[in-house]
Amino acid sequence: MEIFSLKNEIKEYILIKKREGKKIGLVPTMGFLHEGHCQLIRKARSECEIVVLSIFVNPTQFGPSEDFNKYPRDFQRDKSMAIKEGVDIIFCPEAKEMYGENSLAYVDIKKISKVMCGKFRPGHFRGVCSVVLKLFNIIMPDAAYFGLKDYQQYLIIKKMVEDLDLNIEVFGCETVREKDGLAMSSRNKYLSESQRENSLVLYHSLNLAAKNLIEKKKSIQAIKKQSRQMLEENKYVNKIDYFDIRNADDLSNLSAYKQKASKILIASAIYIGKTRLIDNIAILI
Amino acid sequence: MEIFSLKNEIKEYILIKKREGKKIGLVPTMGFLHEGHCQLIRKARSECEIVVLSIFVNPTQFGPSEDFNKYPRDFQRDKSMAIKEGVDIIFCPEAKEMYGENSLAYVDIKKISKVMCGKFRPGHFRGVCSVVLKLFNIIMPDAAYFGLKDYQQYLIIKKMVEDLDLNIEVFGCETVREKDGLAMSSRNKYLSESQRENSLVLYHSLNLAAKNLIEKKKSIQAIKKQSRQMLEENKYVNKIDYFDIRNADDLSNLSAYKQKASKILIASAIYIGKTRLIDNIAILI
Repeated sequence: MEIFSLKNEIKEYILIKKREGKKIGLVPTMGFLHEGHCQLIRKARSECEIVVLSIFVNPTQFGPSEDFNKYPRDFQRDKSMAIKEGVDIIFCPEAKEMYGENSLAYVDIKKISKVMCGKFRPGHFRGVCSVVLKLFNIIMPDAAYFGLKDYQQYLIIKKMVEDLDLNIEVFGCETVREKDGLAMSSRNKYLSESQRENSLVLYHSLNLAAKNLIEKKKSIQAIKKQSRQMLEENKYVNKIDYFDIRNADDLSNLSAYKQKASKILIASAIYIGKTRLIDNIAILI
Repeated sequence: MEIFSLKNEIKEYILIKKREGKKIGLVPTMGFLHEGHCQLIRKARSECEIVVLSIFVNPTQFGPSEDFNKYPRDFQRDKSMAIKEGVDIIFCPEAKEMYGENSLAYVDIKKISKVMCGKFRPGHFRGVCSVVLKLFNIIMPDAAYFGLKDYQQYLIIKKMVEDLDLNIEVFGCETVREKDGLAMSSRNKYLSESQRENSLVLYHSLNLAAKNLIEKKKSIQAIKKQSRQMLEENKYVNKIDYFDIRNADDLSNLSAYKQKASKILIASAIYIGKTRLIDNIAILI
């Protein structure tokens, strides 16, 4: 396995592989890998000849009061896992290498970046789009793999690739969950034992809404209210950023049931103590 | 010469050329070619194996009250000139093909897109950056050629390429002028005979400032004032958007002479009747 921290060095290496006609797959991460990341790597491994894992805790996607500094990092552990999963290249630049002294360009997406997490984390998706586009230009992948736990991010990246005419296939891979249902996330590490137990309420509130939506007995508004209530009743839930029911294709609000079967996204972001957790499920009704 | 109007078709064609190791040069234009464009093509021709000329009057870089509809177009004339100059490929998509139904992604640059033309044409450089990035992703050039008459555009594109880690060399080619000094521009076609004669005042006002700057006898403020006065005294000058003296590297304002020799940009945008003309000269003082 090769490890690069300089843009020019990995570019040069990748260009050789591309000239040989090798298919390049990229799994962009912020490190502190878990089984969710591993499944992305496995999917890339099964489809591509060269698998690149990028590890970069991107400062521009964190707000000033967010957890950039304390975001968990453990390169040695990530490296061992990457070797085990058969990664070919790790790209782990420093922020200074990534952005230089005076970076002025950015990419953003209208509409779909302004709702849900975009509403509560202003500038977050601008930071995500810009760094992912940079990674795409540095690593020149044929395919890139994202986890559907971050469904909005996946949709935004897919739209960016389409709108900017990039030649990259974007794959969204199913959320990987702990045995009890909690979506895997590097941030789960922040949770105390009792917080960890109670964090399950997030997944339960989504499932409650899904069950209600499938039954079609209550209005969308009433369904949202009931799930919100479940969250509010748990004393470990410090704050609810949102509990939304939206069209999964364009994140527009779903205010009433549709006649035609369509894919619906149920998504929520809550704080357990100081830890912000997000989760979602998509259903066809 | 090949002519493409569909993104996927030119992509496919270019990919074959790239796999053959051919160097691709792109000259992005809005058509209605003049000698300035021809010199860009000749420079590309001398350096690249495949020269692509794009012709696209990009709606997103025009403001609602600007001249998008009446912008001069003559494809047959452009085509003849392209053949004569040895262009290999013309790419001339329709707006619907370029943007699809619901384009949401955009690219922009902080600071340097907010001054000069950016101040008077809000959204203009966002439109330029976004369409040029799309062209870069479609045509995958190794080098791209821009005229220095649009100095701010050149600087912005160069910064975009650097900040987004694109693997493209961006060249700025000297402004080509009519015999009397007027910078060549497709928009010169709008001028009546008397307007055409009087439009020279733009170039004269820049040269007056250059002469004054080299002499270093007057303050920067006084130099700007004197050139502005020259413009104001010409009754064909309908409006002055700006007359600026700036550092050529980052477009920051030059308020006093520097001790070290540095490249200074003198730039102006004025209206002759309803026609907006821009011009600039860069000097080392």
